Amino acid sequence: MSESPGIGRPEQAISRIEAFSDGVMAIAITLLILQLAVPGPNVTDRGLGHALLDQEHHFFAYLLTFAVIGRFWMAHHSLFRYVRRHDATFLVLNLVFLLTIAFLPYPSDLLGEHSDDRLAVILYAVSVAAASLSSAALWIYATRRHRLVDPSLPEREIRHIRRRALSGGVVFLLSIPLAFVRVWLAFATWVALLPLVRMTLAARHRREARKV
Amino acid sequence: MSESPGIGRPEQAISRIEAFSDGVMAIAITLLILQLAVPGPNVTDRGLGHALLDQEHHFFAYLLTFAVIGRFWMAHHSLFRYVRRHDATFLVLNLVFLLTIAFLPYPSDLLGEHSDDRLAVILYAVSVAAASLSSAALWIYATRRHRLVDPSLPEREIRHIRRRALSGGVVFLLSIPLAFVRVWLAFATWVALLPLVRMTLAARHRREARKV
Amino acid sequence: MSESPGIGRPEQAISRIEAFSDGVMAIAITLLILQLAVPGPNVTDRGLGHALLDQEHHFFAYLLTFAVIGRFWMAHHSLFRYVRRHDATFLVLNLVFLLTIAFLPYPSDLLGEHSDDRLAVILYAVSVAAASLSSAALWIYATRRHRLVDPSLPEREIRHIRRRALSGGVVFLLSIPLAFVRVWLAFATWVALLPLVRMTLAARHRREARKV
Amino acid sequence: MSESPGIGRPEQAISRIEAFSDGVMAIAITLLILQLAVPGPNVTDRGLGHALLDQEHHFFAYLLTFAVIGRFWMAHHSLFRYVRRHDATFLVLNLVFLLTIAFLPYPSDLLGEHSDDRLAVILYAVSVAAASLSSAALWIYATRRHRLVDPSLPEREIRHIRRRALSGGVVFLLSIPLAFVRVWLAFATWVALLPLVRMTLAARHRREARKV
Repeated sequence: MSESPGIGRPEQAISRIEAFSDGVMAIAITLLILQLAVPGPNVTDRGLGHALLDQEHHFFAYLLTFAVIGRFWMAHHSLFRYVRRHDATFLVLNLVFLLTIAFLPYPSDLLGEHSDDRLAVILYAVSVAAASLSSAALWIYATRRHRLVDPSLPEREIRHIRRRALSGGVVFLLSIPLAFVRVWLAFATWVALLPLVRMTLAARHRREARKV
Repeated sequence: MSESPGIGRPEQAISRIEAFSDGVMAIAITLLILQLAVPGPNVTDRGLGHALLDQEHHFFAYLLTFAVIGRFWMAHHSLFRYVRRHDATFLVLNLVFLLTIAFLPYPSDLLGEHSDDRLAVILYAVSVAAASLSSAALWIYATRRHRLVDPSLPEREIRHIRRRALSGGVVFLLSIPLAFVRVWLAFATWVALLPLVRMTLAARHRREARKV
Repeated sequence: MSESPGIGRPEQAISRIEAFSDGVMAIAITLLILQLAVPGPNVTDRGLGHALLDQEHHFFAYLLTFAVIGRFWMAHHSLFRYVRRHDATFLVLNLVFLLTIAFLPYPSDLLGEHSDDRLAVILYAVSVAAASLSSAALWIYATRRHRLVDPSLPEREIRHIRRRALSGGVVFLLSIPLAFVRVWLAFATWVALLPLVRMTLAARHRREARKV
Repeated sequence: MSESPGIGRPEQAISRIEAFSDGVMAIAITLLILQLAVPGPNVTDRGLGHALLDQEHHFFAYLLTFAVIGRFWMAHHSLFRYVRRHDATFLVLNLVFLLTIAFLPYPSDLLGEHSDDRLAVILYAVSVAAASLSSAALWIYATRRHRLVDPSLPEREIRHIRRRALSGGVVFLLSIPLAFVRVWLAFATWVALLPLVRMTLAARHRREARKV
């Protein structure tokens, strides 16, 4: 995409990428509800309450994936605050990231339907790890030699956002071998280990910021 | 989310949160139509008219939930007019609010399918109350000591918006015990009591505004 | 919605209403595709070609409703170009208009499934007429004594947009009695009469503009 | 659409068309995931792994169509960078383009379900070609005598974007007769020939730019 500099509306370009990305993330997070199917009219023999309880795994997968996509939106939001320019590679990397987000309703539905099946758990972990790693790739590409970001952005901020993005990928990849031991160990890694890692990174970032 | 002040584009940040929130609310309100299933080709024995009349509860639930989400959009719109800054807690509270909105198509479909079942009515009331209370939490967090809002915003305006958000939660929670008496009493509370409470609050607000 | 003038960001308010409306209309127009169901794997006895031809009424309804929503988007777009302020009534009227648009995928699906049934044709005509008339109501409310629009907007422009919005409602209502004679007469009214009426209105508008 | 020049907010008009177009493209690209159906609970006899492998054609069609719509978004994005004005014809042409994008989930689903059926392959090729040609028509209309674009936009940039849009249409139309020989030849044309043609065009464009 050879662009003639000086022509066009560069200042609007970034906000249009944001708008399209927000659109995809907003739709993916809202479409998740379609995985919760309302029980049909013939539930009276056992009662509606039991029929809803049968869906508990779907409710768990729904809430988990809503939190995951919401977290990615926050990360994308804080990442784009520093982006000033774009190029064709950046657009493609952003589309790859959006693909990993738009895909999430599928492994989420799969996890709700087959939460006792190791394969469903592994596919979910791989999908979230792919989203994490592609958002890390987007950030690494944009910040290398301050290619597309604000030149005054301090190196420690760049490192912090990079570590945060990579840590999500590492934790979800790590949970895959654990799923072979016990399926619930993978769930535990996602729900307990990830917040712990993130808090450690945030503490480290604050420590580094104080030093300056 | 430790933010380096002075870098980034703070003035664009609020409008991006609005855009994402509008996206989620616009999708949730439009997805509602999926709960209305078109009768299949084999309805000729009783006629299409009867088949459509059989869906009357779904039509009622559709219209009610459309009005509910539309009202929340208006509230979010009037709330964000005063927001000037944001922080990580505000983003998380906003995501919790969006979760309660994105979830509404499910209890709406449930209400249309099982409108005679007390559990469907209660789940609907709980869901709308959750949306009301989380929008109140968002407002209370943002306005405490004018944390994130325009410093010149008068205290009575803050109180008015807070009361309006809380009143929705209170009315929908109140309807739950009434649903145990008669299911239609819960419907009546939503459709008749809520507008009444809102009109009283608006009258009180106008009275307070005149005093100044 | 009592608003304290001077506080808030009035200039952003209109564009947020536009963004939400665009969201609802974009989703409704894109969701239409869900009414086209892909034939299952067992079509080999008659062939995929025949199975697709069986859906011809759905293709027609899809294209027609896409054109209808697209036209309403263009009308909303040209209407909002002149809007400068808003109030609570305007927001509610706009939500009623969006309800009529978000509802259209249902009568469209119904028309595709039961195109030979008079009731499906009438419901479609009523739905489009409701969208037309509610967009006319929005415009009449906004322009009465230049309430919410640019004060320099000439009266003949106001009249022209009003006539165009009302003409859609009139033509679709007119097609209802015709549907009782022959169903195809209603289709013919939509596809042939409406463009004719619109062209007449445009010619009249140009004539009036030349006089000045 | 007779527009009174000088009234209205022309500078906002283009960005609203972009926002609506982005909305439709974001929804279409995210809705694609609905073509991937999660295997039901009764897959234990053969295992979830086999059930997922049975969907391989759907995964291929999903990824292909995601890439196709993503590419069209990038093209629309680079095209609109130069657009300065609009008129009714431009709006209609843009709606026709959006129709071809919003329609793509259907041939994509069809391709996943009947990837061995020549008709599904041809319908997919026709649909993508229609999107390419309508985006070319949009560009040709906007740039003829610099009708709606920046007057300083060099002729070689106009030619380059036009060739790129037309080349997609030509390649997909070319693949149709090849589908009659062997279905996989059509796939090969899409996946291998198109990138080749695009790279040749980009090289030619760079050569022309250097000459100046």
